[in-house]
Amino acid sequence: MSPFTGSAARTSRWEHLRVDLADGVATVTLARPDKLNALTFGAYADLRDLLAELARERAVRALVLAGEGRGFCSGGDVDEIIGATLAMDTAELLDFNRMTGQVVRAIRECPFPVVAAVHGVAAGAGAVLALAADFRVADAGARFAFLFTRVGLSGGDMGAAYLLPRVVGLGHATRLLMLGDPVRAPEAERIGLISVLTDEGDADEAARALARRLADGPALAHAQTKALLTAELDMPLAAAVELDASTQALLMNGEDYAEFHAAFTEKRPPKWRGR
Amino acid sequence: MSPFTGSAARTSRWEHLRVDLADGVATVTLARPDKLNALTFGAYADLRDLLAELARERAVRALVLAGEGRGFCSGGDVDEIIGATLAMDTAELLDFNRMTGQVVRAIRECPFPVVAAVHGVAAGAGAVLALAADFRVADAGARFAFLFTRVGLSGGDMGAAYLLPRVVGLGHATRLLMLGDPVRAPEAERIGLISVLTDEGDADEAARALARRLADGPALAHAQTKALLTAELDMPLAAAVELDASTQALLMNGEDYAEFHAAFTEKRPPKWRGR
Amino acid sequence: MSPFTGSAARTSRWEHLRVDLADGVATVTLARPDKLNALTFGAYADLRDLLAELARERAVRALVLAGEGRGFCSGGDVDEIIGATLAMDTAELLDFNRMTGQVVRAIRECPFPVVAAVHGVAAGAGAVLALAADFRVADAGARFAFLFTRVGLSGGDMGAAYLLPRVVGLGHATRLLMLGDPVRAPEAERIGLISVLTDEGDADEAARALARRLADGPALAHAQTKALLTAELDMPLAAAVELDASTQALLMNGEDYAEFHAAFTEKRPPKWRGR
Repeated sequence: MSPFTGSAARTSRWEHLRVDLADGVATVTLARPDKLNALTFGAYADLRDLLAELARERAVRALVLAGEGRGFCSGGDVDEIIGATLAMDTAELLDFNRMTGQVVRAIRECPFPVVAAVHGVAAGAGAVLALAADFRVADAGARFAFLFTRVGLSGGDMGAAYLLPRVVGLGHATRLLMLGDPVRAPEAERIGLISVLTDEGDADEAARALARRLADGPALAHAQTKALLTAELDMPLAAAVELDASTQALLMNGEDYAEFHAAFTEKRPPKWRGR
Repeated sequence: MSPFTGSAARTSRWEHLRVDLADGVATVTLARPDKLNALTFGAYADLRDLLAELARERAVRALVLAGEGRGFCSGGDVDEIIGATLAMDTAELLDFNRMTGQVVRAIRECPFPVVAAVHGVAAGAGAVLALAADFRVADAGARFAFLFTRVGLSGGDMGAAYLLPRVVGLGHATRLLMLGDPVRAPEAERIGLISVLTDEGDADEAARALARRLADGPALAHAQTKALLTAELDMPLAAAVELDASTQALLMNGEDYAEFHAAFTEKRPPKWRGR
Repeated sequence: MSPFTGSAARTSRWEHLRVDLADGVATVTLARPDKLNALTFGAYADLRDLLAELARERAVRALVLAGEGRGFCSGGDVDEIIGATLAMDTAELLDFNRMTGQVVRAIRECPFPVVAAVHGVAAGAGAVLALAADFRVADAGARFAFLFTRVGLSGGDMGAAYLLPRVVGLGHATRLLMLGDPVRAPEAERIGLISVLTDEGDADEAARALARRLADGPALAHAQTKALLTAELDMPLAAAVELDASTQALLMNGEDYAEFHAAFTEKRPPKWRGR
């Protein structure tokens, strides 16, 4: 628990997501399997608020984002989101689209690695949630589809036009966002969209194992690695090198660095504290 | 036709390019096949001015850039450009090099996707024209060569040192721009330089089909996807997410988004209007 | 020799590196083979100072960075660096980490291409030295490991969180920097981390041949290509295109461009002067 806790309440029940927390690993499951885990306003709002709470509390060292049933996430619900937005005024439309963007920023900026466990379809906003994660563990049957233009919208949704070129390059990103065609696992791996490819059906377990490994490791080092990767996409080289220097100087004062050296000297594995 | 049309004349005849416009698809053909479509001052100026006119008029929803004869484009003409620039003073040299850069900016900034149809050689400035396009449809015999250093110039010509690392990564981009060696289709596909690989001889037809598909689709959604991909290469994440939010809010007020929902509900294909 | 030489002395002997200079090609060898060329404070300082001297003197047109013995470089020495830093105060830690960053900036900003010749292991700081080079010539037995988190530090060391996503994309970079797992030559080539893959044992010779080719070529064109690739990672498109235009205008006034045209006209190979 962080010492910097104020009056803000801890949410006791997340109604639109299934959330488990065990020994530093949070597992967040999109759990509307009859709708291929289509996102609702409530699910977006819960993702935004949950990530803010977890970031504040510091009890989480890694997070798995998974989908129940036949696929990961089919994106925004056609009835509950597309239909509803057609009746919204401009201010409401901005509010909604800013909320979805806040979810992506929360995934990129939270102080723990996020592992998306992808099987079946990751479409629309579901594809962007996976894209925003630090790791995409996907099985051989997974497929991604950034199908925003298919509903008459911009392919640049929730930061996709920022993130995708930085993950797969501008050429592939243009093709994927402009056309909205599905990208199956072999192509997704070839272009760098998949971090870890598993046999069909094994993505959830592999994602859990990776999150376990991350949570058991030097969590502060992981958190700073993530923060620097995120920040340095937007920084010039000279500033990035200076940020690296001050970050390493900070961590060299930390417990885990000393522990590594002690363990190395004593020929034993280090006991990471995440400090 | 755009309502924002002033006194500027519409060019009736492009002397240095072949230009066709049919049902929203412009086809621009480099047509000096006896010279492998080597670029002249006139061809650069026509590309710059044509793209500006097409962007202003809003009659085009997709553009194909192709080359007649044995290859796509062999780059700047050795006699008509290299020879001529040797006699230029500094102000003229700047003018020339700014013009070529304006062509690349026009390709990246015009409000419709540009599909380069590449067969045979795309060399020098020809390689950069293809690189600046949104899609590179290339056949199995295509080859790219950024051969600027071979003539004693910088590999960073017409934005190539900006664009190529963002398409294929810094390592490959350094090798290609520094050495100027040809990159054949299989390697070009592997590193992300080709968007769609076709059998030999099929690039023109595949590029036309892709442009047709784009022009028949939600053209405003495509235009905004392109604009955001271009802009967000130069923006930090937080600003990109905000731009995405306001763009989607705008398009959610548009006709095509409502049409998607109506068509989905009525179980029929949408009739895109590009608005 | 540059005309802009002042009072600063030329170092006569580099104690922590082996340095050879022959006909425009500098070869810098990490030469502590009994320690897998683990870096010491002295080696970092020598790399920083050597590159500054070579950049100033302008006698070098290409540089090979190689490692003697079983591997390229195992990174910072566990005893001489990790142990020593544990006893440092905050100002000293900053000084040390800024020095290592200065080495990377010197590699990226020196006016000649740097070719890393990698065989065996390139780990930790050794992996970043190779990453900062313009070319990574690596043999089939090479492996890279960005193992900073393994010692409790941030994966963003010496600019790695800036450079690696720009070379291999954000997804692969996150995996490599967060986990510190070794990347063997076939994967390194697939993701774009290797520029030229050779048979086992051939990396040094291939790197020397590449440096020879670069040094015999239009060196000013190479230098400007490198400078633009480095600068334009941090620039928007419009500024990059303007920088390209003024650079090409400059080089079109240079000797090598005129020499290319003369040689082409006379049907003979150009004699590059690097001016």
